Amino acid sequence: MSTLIAHLRSTVGAAHVLTHDDPATDLSAWEQDWRKRAHGRALAVVRPGNTAEVAAVVKACAAAGASIVPQGGNTGLVVGGVPDNSGTQVLLSLTRLNRVRAIDGANLTMTVDAGCVLQNLQTAAAQAGFLFPLSLAAEGSCTIGGNLATNAGGTQVLRYGNTRDLCLGLEVVTAQGEVWDGLSGLRKDNTGYDLRDLFVGSEGTLGIITAATLKLYPQPAAKLTAWAAVPSMQAAVELLGLAQQRLAAGLTGFEVMGQFALGLVDKHFPQLRVPLWQDTPYCVLLENSDFESEAHARGLFESLLETAFERGTVTDAVVAENLTQAKGLWNIRESIPLAQAEEGLNIKHDISVPVSSIPAFCEATDAELQRAIPGMRLVNFGHLGDGNLHYNVQAPEGVDGKAFLRDEEERINTLVFDAVARFGGSISAEHGVGSLKATKLPHYKNPVALSLMRAIKSALDPQGLMNPGRVI
Amino acid sequence: MSTLIAHLRSTVGAAHVLTHDDPATDLSAWEQDWRKRAHGRALAVVRPGNTAEVAAVVKACAAAGASIVPQGGNTGLVVGGVPDNSGTQVLLSLTRLNRVRAIDGANLTMTVDAGCVLQNLQTAAAQAGFLFPLSLAAEGSCTIGGNLATNAGGTQVLRYGNTRDLCLGLEVVTAQGEVWDGLSGLRKDNTGYDLRDLFVGSEGTLGIITAATLKLYPQPAAKLTAWAAVPSMQAAVELLGLAQQRLAAGLTGFEVMGQFALGLVDKHFPQLRVPLWQDTPYCVLLENSDFESEAHARGLFESLLETAFERGTVTDAVVAENLTQAKGLWNIRESIPLAQAEEGLNIKHDISVPVSSIPAFCEATDAELQRAIPGMRLVNFGHLGDGNLHYNVQAPEGVDGKAFLRDEEERINTLVFDAVARFGGSISAEHGVGSLKATKLPHYKNPVALSLMRAIKSALDPQGLMNPGRVI
Repeated sequence: MSTLIAHLRSTVGAAHVLTHDDPATDLSAWEQDWRKRAHGRALAVVRPGNTAEVAAVVKACAAAGASIVPQGGNTGLVVGGVPDNSGTQVLLSLTRLNRVRAIDGANLTMTVDAGCVLQNLQTAAAQAGFLFPLSLAAEGSCTIGGNLATNAGGTQVLRYGNTRDLCLGLEVVTAQGEVWDGLSGLRKDNTGYDLRDLFVGSEGTLGIITAATLKLYPQPAAKLTAWAAVPSMQAAVELLGLAQQRLAAGLTGFEVMGQFALGLVDKHFPQLRVPLWQDTPYCVLLENSDFESEAHARGLFESLLETAFERGTVTDAVVAENLTQAKGLWNIRESIPLAQAEEGLNIKHDISVPVSSIPAFCEATDAELQRAIPGMRLVNFGHLGDGNLHYNVQAPEGVDGKAFLRDEEERINTLVFDAVARFGGSISAEHGVGSLKATKLPHYKNPVALSLMRAIKSALDPQGLMNPGRVI
Repeated sequence: MSTLIAHLRSTVGAAHVLTHDDPATDLSAWEQDWRKRAHGRALAVVRPGNTAEVAAVVKACAAAGASIVPQGGNTGLVVGGVPDNSGTQVLLSLTRLNRVRAIDGANLTMTVDAGCVLQNLQTAAAQAGFLFPLSLAAEGSCTIGGNLATNAGGTQVLRYGNTRDLCLGLEVVTAQGEVWDGLSGLRKDNTGYDLRDLFVGSEGTLGIITAATLKLYPQPAAKLTAWAAVPSMQAAVELLGLAQQRLAAGLTGFEVMGQFALGLVDKHFPQLRVPLWQDTPYCVLLENSDFESEAHARGLFESLLETAFERGTVTDAVVAENLTQAKGLWNIRESIPLAQAEEGLNIKHDISVPVSSIPAFCEATDAELQRAIPGMRLVNFGHLGDGNLHYNVQAPEGVDGKAFLRDEEERINTLVFDAVARFGGSISAEHGVGSLKATKLPHYKNPVALSLMRAIKSALDPQGLMNPGRVI
């Protein structure tokens, strides 16, 4: 392995190959995952500076039989981007590939390196007068390469789709160290298999994404946010349907939040002043991106909410008066994960079922959980418009979180995942599989799909060196 | 092979296995392609009635080593769905799989058999109060399975995407005759590789699509169509950008038509009364789908066109007064292929380049063609919003079309495809590869992409029995 290290040093420069040989070097920023569920030990952290160097690193590793774990901002939630404990894996960090290569306004595209931080891409697009709509909690640190590798979701999926839907082309280093230049600003190209969408979401197990051409959109003239109390999850689904009819593509956000989740925000961050949560089982946050004017957006919202009141779909509502208020409402939604952390450890899920099944799923699964763990508390919130809930289970009042996780996590996961399967859903809606859920797939994924996936993995990575143990 | 035929008859019923053994049976409806460029000879035409029968047919063929050519409505334009001349291939017709399995309004999805005719699906969606937006010239005969297999485009791609973008899940019979039930109404599912998008667009070379879950959309309140004369292709691109900013997702159609193409419609179908074409190099058809009202749509169009006049982007324009006028304008656009057929045979292309490159591509390639074939006439029209042109070359006035095709098709294809490649485009934007362009891919497709495609083909169809000779 020392030959490999020497080769890597000569390829990317000694300064960009970090190893444990120097006892002063702390690699935990790369070796430990975001949620601190795993801490591995890498043979080396390698930080190439361009695509050719990535290809050379992959070729060197392939020749040496060393496996590669690609990493972007290391903000993943499923332990997909940190090395195992063997001390034999090369951690390939993409963060030095951080250039915006081109912005093409007339084509509504930008071509960017994989290591660009998502927020920087949002800013680059905005400075050119456009919107890059991908938006999620980790946007200040996550990289677009990681977003693509995990097909990240976020809050704007309802209108703009997942990361996959925002990508027109890729540059990929294959498991053999070849560079596939599939960067494309084309919206139509039917010359063969959809390799782009195969690499997107493959979590580094088929190749390394080094760059992408992404869709841009015109900036809306105004964004307006409303907050509505709904009497039930069924009412929330009905409000969604009404909002889709009235606002059409203007509806860019539709988040649901359960009373207990909002109560936690109120308890731990009272300064955020959560509205309307005390007398209702759920609140909904709606966002309307309008291409005419704020007044037009407000008129549409008012008419929508009026109809919803009449139908009893909404019992109370506020529309943000200005951008600060709108940000405040989003801030409440985004503070739920922090508030639940303040309350103690909990068992997190990232599930989806068809939107039409959400009310029945919640009713059945809430009751089943309550029977299994009397007093358990449900932090239920998420992207209702996408059928995606973060359906997290908090220990009963007074029960120690650590002990709860140790004793109950497996049982609760099984209960929730079995319910998801009954409703035709997914046990990983937007976070991916990683190591955390790789062992679950054989139970919850269609066996024919799994065998197709294995065939593809063997075909593209016959040595099995690309992020092994992840996904399949 | 007679054992195979007997096996197939016992599987799907003798009435649904047609062979040449009976000299009275005419199989040319299945053996000849839509554009009559190829006429093959099948071992048998097999018409299974459900997914289990499709699987049984594939298993029987795999055991017998017989290759399979799947076919839907047989409206493809690239000779992808008819058998070769060997008399050994099984033509698998999916048209008996024609049920709408379910419509889920709250989830905005419908699940349908692969053999459903596209227009029937548009109707089924409309009857349930929703829009299924896929729309193309062959919609009265083509099937959704064929649309999926070729990732068909059409006139609404600008807003709703290609067929791939309208699909949430698939049911597929693999090359081994296993059924993958990947029907899913989920908008988010990150549990592994994107098999759905791999089968979509694979033209039957990896497996047989037997059903799909498709996205529905709310019906717009009004649809308004405008027709504008623009002074140049560059002006058309500028008008597109302005329309995208002003109408955002309301802009559901943006078609460009060259003067010669419109002149042919005027000449052969004078009753269609083509507006504004005589004094301008290009006309543009814009469609605005509005979720408020026709008055609102009209206001937006008027303001858009006013700005465009002021900027000189548009020199003249009409807005349809009613649905009949709107249909009349679309009819002109859709009559271009018929009008060029009336004028004689021509050399057809289905190319795309980045929208921003369209003006330069046209300027350079028009001139190059004119130098190569003085007097050649360009029937240039297409989906400008997608960067997709049907850039067809008609013989010079008075030259025989048949002779022109025979003598010049190869040279003109090479000239156009080379130009497309220089501008980073695709030689097949929306029609697929089939047999017609399979031999072109090695010249115009990235070699790393081709080797990835071959690896996937070998992995999923190791016997090479699924629609051989197509795509790769």
